[in-house]
Amino acid sequence: MQSSSAADPVNFSTTTFEVGGREYRPPASPVAVLCIDGCGCEYLDITMAHGRMPNVMAMVANGYRGLVRAALPTFTNVNNAAIATGLPPSETGISGNFFLNPETGEEVMMNSKEFLRADTIFSAAAKAGRKIGIVTAKEKLRDMLSAGLEIGVPGGAIAFSSEKADQAQSVTHGIENVETVVGEKTPKIYSAEASLFALRAGVALLQQQKADFLYLSLTDYMQHKYPPEAEESLAFYEGMDHEIGRLLELGAVVGATADHGMNAKCNADGAVNVLYLETEINKAFGTGHRVICPITDPYVVHHGALGSLVMVHLAPGSDADAISRWILAQDGVTEVFDRNTAANKCELPPERIGDLVVLAGRDYVIGRTPGDHDLSQLGGMLRSHGGRYEEMVPMLLSEPLNHAYYAKAAGDPRNFDIFQFTCNGVQR
Amino acid sequence: MQSSSAADPVNFSTTTFEVGGREYRPPASPVAVLCIDGCGCEYLDITMAHGRMPNVMAMVANGYRGLVRAALPTFTNVNNAAIATGLPPSETGISGNFFLNPETGEEVMMNSKEFLRADTIFSAAAKAGRKIGIVTAKEKLRDMLSAGLEIGVPGGAIAFSSEKADQAQSVTHGIENVETVVGEKTPKIYSAEASLFALRAGVALLQQQKADFLYLSLTDYMQHKYPPEAEESLAFYEGMDHEIGRLLELGAVVGATADHGMNAKCNADGAVNVLYLETEINKAFGTGHRVICPITDPYVVHHGALGSLVMVHLAPGSDADAISRWILAQDGVTEVFDRNTAANKCELPPERIGDLVVLAGRDYVIGRTPGDHDLSQLGGMLRSHGGRYEEMVPMLLSEPLNHAYYAKAAGDPRNFDIFQFTCNGVQR
Repeated sequence: MQSSSAADPVNFSTTTFEVGGREYRPPASPVAVLCIDGCGCEYLDITMAHGRMPNVMAMVANGYRGLVRAALPTFTNVNNAAIATGLPPSETGISGNFFLNPETGEEVMMNSKEFLRADTIFSAAAKAGRKIGIVTAKEKLRDMLSAGLEIGVPGGAIAFSSEKADQAQSVTHGIENVETVVGEKTPKIYSAEASLFALRAGVALLQQQKADFLYLSLTDYMQHKYPPEAEESLAFYEGMDHEIGRLLELGAVVGATADHGMNAKCNADGAVNVLYLETEINKAFGTGHRVICPITDPYVVHHGALGSLVMVHLAPGSDADAISRWILAQDGVTEVFDRNTAANKCELPPERIGDLVVLAGRDYVIGRTPGDHDLSQLGGMLRSHGGRYEEMVPMLLSEPLNHAYYAKAAGDPRNFDIFQFTCNGVQR
Repeated sequence: MQSSSAADPVNFSTTTFEVGGREYRPPASPVAVLCIDGCGCEYLDITMAHGRMPNVMAMVANGYRGLVRAALPTFTNVNNAAIATGLPPSETGISGNFFLNPETGEEVMMNSKEFLRADTIFSAAAKAGRKIGIVTAKEKLRDMLSAGLEIGVPGGAIAFSSEKADQAQSVTHGIENVETVVGEKTPKIYSAEASLFALRAGVALLQQQKADFLYLSLTDYMQHKYPPEAEESLAFYEGMDHEIGRLLELGAVVGATADHGMNAKCNADGAVNVLYLETEINKAFGTGHRVICPITDPYVVHHGALGSLVMVHLAPGSDADAISRWILAQDGVTEVFDRNTAANKCELPPERIGDLVVLAGRDYVIGRTPGDHDLSQLGGMLRSHGGRYEEMVPMLLSEPLNHAYYAKAAGDPRNFDIFQFTCNGVQR
């Protein structure tokens, strides 16, 4: 695809760089990678069937669409950290949005850069001469993703969120007056606009030559709230398609994937299928066992901290095998791994997970105790994620794959390979 | 959708019937349910993006598309038996294409009606006054699916395969001169035509008022052989779309699903990722352990009997827990269940599975011993199925869902609910 845009006279650094033991060869054009939060394939399928994603449909026909496997647990921070580094959670250290910190014994959010153990693709790309623009819908991701970036210096990186766009400052975010730059007011976080603003900000950064290597990470508020066939969702994806079209017009190589899919977690009567695992374990095996819900984040309207993977920290001296077998026998539970097996099979950092890792099925979530989850915030239904059934997500590329990456795409490509596919994998 | 076809003057029985404890309320129009063998969602997605499935795209926009969960193991006989009865394998008794028969100690195909333990929807629909037409691409399914049907009597059912279309006789198949009826020669089984012939036969049966309640079950030869973006696959799905358009023109309520998805089972170099489990267990734990590959069927060109779920029959006196843990630690293995857990979690008949049930990941297959699998038949690559990663498949309906079934579709609908969705679930 050729560009006839304002970005044309710019030179885009094609300097190869290496990070996390992987090589990246950026093309001589803008790069825009999107993480469409909570984008199960069905959102694209249904909106396309309605003829409301013409740009993405052309992208699939002329470029590539395939399925990639997200990192478990299928939560936002886990997969954004993986995408930003090109590495699995075992190497990023980010195993949830929230965890029991073994160093302090405290249950804390895992969204600050101090927890990230690997260098980001952005910091390496910046050193190789690319101008970085990171826009996240949710503020919670901004800090972590800007790890290692030089911000507030000439030619430095830009990183801000839709949620706090109006608070961005040159010295801390590499940009100010974001509302003027984007031409829109800071959106509410519980809105479609929170994601569309991030995309429009990306378009503005390219157009105004403020950045040429973009990571645009959206929010799944809409996917938590609406199934794919709802008019609200169709309109949201149509809006997304429009902005993707603008990125393509500006000559960007566009790659898109998701951090996780999304499933209704209810029975045919619409009631939430939830297992309060801490309550049940303590009832069956005595007190002292703790369940951590790593989906927990500040955005409680989305999911009430109910997801499809939890960590179990056992009371000292308990019989892990017996508890493990008992958990697996519960309705809705599909997999139970001990710490080492989970670390090996799910590529997780063993010291940042539970003694047991428990996964639920397509229509089930696992909670802690009834008191820990406020279902009244959910508006009578729950769509959520975290487990194996939200693992397979789309990968979209605006150009056809070259030979080597076509072969790679046929095996077990991952969502955190998206920068390699976008930089190295396409024919341009 | 209104019909202006030759089928109009006919009365279609709307008599409610019950089978397998479930009620079916057929509409006053032809019913056509398709099992698109091996149809992972990506086959529809990519072909639609190329604009080559206009009828199905309109069906999605005006009707319904969603994801349904297939029965494990994700093999053809298992899921065709489930779809034909509306019941999981625990009730159909069909746990594979092939199994170790505990009554005889022999390893045998599981494709004859003697193994099916549940009544079919077809036999119940026939008793309720519908004229049944079953067309399977593969001969192996015909016998099992025609269990309980009156064939060769006036008003009796029709059941034949593409593979042996030219051998159909009135007394045994309820039809003769199939090539004349369909207007085509019997296709080769290893071809796109084997499936397209089954669809065209369905069209012919409706057009000629020989049947009004169709089950058309295709073959996955093309999906085993080609990824979705291959021109051969695009042309195949385009051909399918054409026939689906004809079924719609004839006024049929059309429902479609798949028996399983399909994944490339290779690494980025294109080499098959295979674990020869019997060889490895016997090496590690001594001889006498047997691995059964329930994908095994007469169509070896498809997959060389390599799939992503196997049954392990342990030697007497062996330590099942230790072997189980050892298997789970092997590369490519994702889940290991003992017999009872597998029966409970995967809805399997315990006496027709192994002491252990072992599942492999998206890009892995499990075999028996190298000598049991002829990889030379595969043409240098392997696309296969059988495990968890081929479990989620599309469900397509030509009409919008009614309120009750819309709610059902949001939970954990199954591919074997397809006749209920098509009969009871649509607004017509």
